[in-house]
Amino acid sequence: MGGSLALALRPFAETITAVEMDRQACEYALEKRIVDRATDDLREGVSEADVVIMAAPVRVIQALIERRIGSYLRSNVLFVDIGSTKKDICAAMGRLPVGVQAVGGHPMTGKETSGVQYSDANLYKGRPFVLCPTRRTTPAARLRALALVAALGAMPFEMEAERHDHLVAAISHLPYLLSAALVATVAKEGQTDPLVWELAAGGFRDMSRLAGQDVTMMGDILSTNTQAVATLLALFRVQLAMIEALLVSRHEEELTDMLIPAREARRQWIHNYENGFKHGK
Amino acid sequence: MGGSLALALRPFAETITAVEMDRQACEYALEKRIVDRATDDLREGVSEADVVIMAAPVRVIQALIERRIGSYLRSNVLFVDIGSTKKDICAAMGRLPVGVQAVGGHPMTGKETSGVQYSDANLYKGRPFVLCPTRRTTPAARLRALALVAALGAMPFEMEAERHDHLVAAISHLPYLLSAALVATVAKEGQTDPLVWELAAGGFRDMSRLAGQDVTMMGDILSTNTQAVATLLALFRVQLAMIEALLVSRHEEELTDMLIPAREARRQWIHNYENGFKHGK
Repeated sequence: MGGSLALALRPFAETITAVEMDRQACEYALEKRIVDRATDDLREGVSEADVVIMAAPVRVIQALIERRIGSYLRSNVLFVDIGSTKKDICAAMGRLPVGVQAVGGHPMTGKETSGVQYSDANLYKGRPFVLCPTRRTTPAARLRALALVAALGAMPFEMEAERHDHLVAAISHLPYLLSAALVATVAKEGQTDPLVWELAAGGFRDMSRLAGQDVTMMGDILSTNTQAVATLLALFRVQLAMIEALLVSRHEEELTDMLIPAREARRQWIHNYENGFKHGK
Repeated sequence: MGGSLALALRPFAETITAVEMDRQACEYALEKRIVDRATDDLREGVSEADVVIMAAPVRVIQALIERRIGSYLRSNVLFVDIGSTKKDICAAMGRLPVGVQAVGGHPMTGKETSGVQYSDANLYKGRPFVLCPTRRTTPAARLRALALVAALGAMPFEMEAERHDHLVAAISHLPYLLSAALVATVAKEGQTDPLVWELAAGGFRDMSRLAGQDVTMMGDILSTNTQAVATLLALFRVQLAMIEALLVSRHEEELTDMLIPAREARRQWIHNYENGFKHGK
């Protein structure tokens, strides 16, 4: 994500510095001119910066904000993160020194690979980029964050951190848990009948993909969004229980009446997702 | 599915006859020489056949077997279906006239498009093809069905109908219901916050795809496999509840310990799915 940011912002930046502990990633990024400078020293990396973008797990970002980075930053620096949940980070940002122009951020890219070698200047193009205000978001900070999103070619969506976290619980964290629980279910079946794996095809492939994601990353995300995820799990259970009740009681017409709106909603959504949502109503 | 069967079996068949009510589909199949003859008359279509393959919704196949087709068939005809659930169909096949060589079938292709214009001679190649014995499956019938699967380039998996139905409940019907319930949940959210649709990305795309499937087809499948689907739903609920309990009680390490095996199982499976399962132990 950081490499893609660097590539996308290249035309707008005088100097791009990577702060990165992974020496190999630094060497690669320098060699490919993705960045101009690289350092493993946070203070050195950020102290001269006009814009700082934090790309790291949620709790790493939160810890760096709370414990160290405030005293390293210049006044009037634009300080944005791209962490996957926003409530804790935005709260921490609100306690940064006055003068830091801090805005929470989350690009919705659906990126499936990570690592600097997969950096892609077009990753953010046309995709939503959520911006969440903090107690350090002045009107000027907001405009600079919007300009940053525009530079990436992304679409800005401004909302409170809590609203963001609730929405991503629905479209991202709940789906991950369903995928993991599905794979766990099939794995249980596989203990008594291993053929279950061999018969699985395209439907299972799609529904199990998220379960293959990095567990540390997902644990970090879930642990910083527990309440919203629990809420969505409860709402999901209701929907699944309704479907199940109609199925086992053999109310076939009512079951169809429930499955058709889901089919239509999905078809409408994939059309919009692939062709662009209409705005400006 | 029928068109793909015809194309794949072309080198092995003297005459291929389509029995199809849709006149346009018949004309297309004749024009493209997918079939040699086409008729909307079942008796005419099957009465001279050495091999009959039923490609239709489960309950249509079942009704045709129970009500009409038995008296139309030649003795020693190989009679196979490709319906998505097997218990009801295989039971009906068992009541066909003695002399009909009937075997239940289900190719696991993960085909995402339907219609004769998407016919693909390679659809079955390298994919599992389940064969389920019936009371009309003589040893000769079994060998002919195996030869049919070999002609398609598919891999035969012989098992009882009940075992098949339980396995596909896990890898196909449960995933569909989860996908539909997820979309229904997001649709509920969308009623209070329509932005949920615009922020959704690749994870939601994959997890919602199955919900966009044909509801009539899925209703037919679910209604003929209710018990196995209910069993799998119950098993799934246990897995999801365990994940939720660890999440909300903030037992992060135990949560990780549960998510890691799911990740590994998925990674192992996708590797095997893409590179071929090892056989011969």
